[in-house]
Amino acid sequence: MLTSNPTVAVIGAGAVGLYYGGRLARAGTPVHFLVRSDHAALTRHGLRVASCDGDFHLPPDRLRLHTDPREMPPADLVLIAFKTTSNDLCRPLVTPVLKPGSAILTFQNGLGNEDHLASLFPAHRVYGGIAFTCIHREPEALVRHTSHGLIRLGRFAGPPDDHTRFVADLLRSAEIRCEVLDDLARGRWAKLIWNVPFNGLGAALDLATDQILASDTGAALVERLMREVIAAAAAANRVSFPDADEIIRDQIGQTREMARYRTSMQLDRQAGRPMEVDAIIGEPLRRGVAAGASLPEMASLYHLLQTVDRATSIYT
Amino acid sequence: MLTSNPTVAVIGAGAVGLYYGGRLARAGTPVHFLVRSDHAALTRHGLRVASCDGDFHLPPDRLRLHTDPREMPPADLVLIAFKTTSNDLCRPLVTPVLKPGSAILTFQNGLGNEDHLASLFPAHRVYGGIAFTCIHREPEALVRHTSHGLIRLGRFAGPPDDHTRFVADLLRSAEIRCEVLDDLARGRWAKLIWNVPFNGLGAALDLATDQILASDTGAALVERLMREVIAAAAAANRVSFPDADEIIRDQIGQTREMARYRTSMQLDRQAGRPMEVDAIIGEPLRRGVAAGASLPEMASLYHLLQTVDRATSIYT
Repeated sequence: MLTSNPTVAVIGAGAVGLYYGGRLARAGTPVHFLVRSDHAALTRHGLRVASCDGDFHLPPDRLRLHTDPREMPPADLVLIAFKTTSNDLCRPLVTPVLKPGSAILTFQNGLGNEDHLASLFPAHRVYGGIAFTCIHREPEALVRHTSHGLIRLGRFAGPPDDHTRFVADLLRSAEIRCEVLDDLARGRWAKLIWNVPFNGLGAALDLATDQILASDTGAALVERLMREVIAAAAAANRVSFPDADEIIRDQIGQTREMARYRTSMQLDRQAGRPMEVDAIIGEPLRRGVAAGASLPEMASLYHLLQTVDRATSIYT
Repeated sequence: MLTSNPTVAVIGAGAVGLYYGGRLARAGTPVHFLVRSDHAALTRHGLRVASCDGDFHLPPDRLRLHTDPREMPPADLVLIAFKTTSNDLCRPLVTPVLKPGSAILTFQNGLGNEDHLASLFPAHRVYGGIAFTCIHREPEALVRHTSHGLIRLGRFAGPPDDHTRFVADLLRSAEIRCEVLDDLARGRWAKLIWNVPFNGLGAALDLATDQILASDTGAALVERLMREVIAAAAAANRVSFPDADEIIRDQIGQTREMARYRTSMQLDRQAGRPMEVDAIIGEPLRRGVAAGASLPEMASLYHLLQTVDRATSIYT
């Protein structure tokens, strides 16, 4: 993989895949996109990104689009960007683009994605990228990036190695902010402290962040869920957050200052799409409980989300 | 009150008040309606009831409409039909229509309404009517009654007395099905076995009854909530339901057979109206917990509903 001009494959090019893959392609990296529903729109318009960091456009003749992974060349870096609800497609979608030494980097949400990839492919080549960003797709494959964009990057099987730093440099060369994590699991859990309450309650109750925090009851619920995520992290991965009170106060405070924000899981619910219930709530809950943590609020929220997901998803 | 032609006052004439008051007026009882937003429409069209038991119409000159209770004559029977979320208006709205011996009958949902009335007015004159019916109001004060209509009637302060039977006969004379209950508290709790899970989850998650029951998780949640209501009834009022398993199986089974049904609390949520969270969930929860019952699912649901109510109600 340590080549001066690596080939990148973006598998599952939704908003996140198109945005980050688009930045890499714009910087001169050969990027092959595996797309499905957006193929026609991207062929017509190219990739249009309306970004808070400056709009850009890749015309159709600069986009390498594919609808079948078996038509794609082997890649040095494989970016996994489909939703976790399609994780059972990992093997057929990823295998065709692998070659000896390929790095596999998942930008998916929640917990368990690297483990899943490591069970299918060489574990020491699996990386996780935790995306802190607001990106969504609008009609005709217009990608709208409204804030942030940081990737926190770590290696699944241990501390960062040369390849980790190589990937980080590649992302940075494409004007993507990137931090390398010593401990990927810690980074995943840290993000869940926010995602479990706000994605979870937002989707279960169909409320935006400001609506959840509009009542003392809602804020107290968020806080109890955050404490349980922290307890689950400590039990399951021996990841400790000694400054838990401060983290909780800061995260709630910063969320209060944001404009009304609907999480990805709430948007999925509203659009009738399957929600990432297992990656974001189920897996952290299972790991915490298996390690002996008491997580009643997370368990309760998980049941509500399963009920809502089954009731509202129009896909089977 | 035991007069051959009693005067009735309907306080808070929403769908339920207009429907039952309308039936009494149609049967020849002098009924005075305290109305608010519907005054203009009722003055224009009269009261139009589209009922599964036969439509009827009371022309404007047969309707006694009021917008101020101080303009209303004293009534032998006062029907309370405003939402429990307006219970702090009981004293100013009801006091002007009382006279010595007036019976006060609440058709409101949930628990605690008779207690509240008994704290303000003579307790031995307080009655509860549990309405089993589907009625809603459409634009221009059209009342649509789609199924059922039974009133289960009981006395707050003890077993039924002559006045209870008199009220029951009055309702029956107006073609309203009416059963007299020996134990009003038991009747209230019995209705909560259905209302707590379906109104509660329906409003919290914004799901209709069939959507709640579409998953095993949802059905299991409903069942756990039903068991907690039964436990709360036993603890708080020594009301026992020895056939709990059968009740739960029947209620879930019958609900599965219904068409998609959105509960009143879900409709309130969707319309941005305050929801009857305290009467339907809060009060049963408080009574059960005070009597030593363990009600974790009800407590959790109550917190969710408070959060949603605060977030979605556009009235203050």
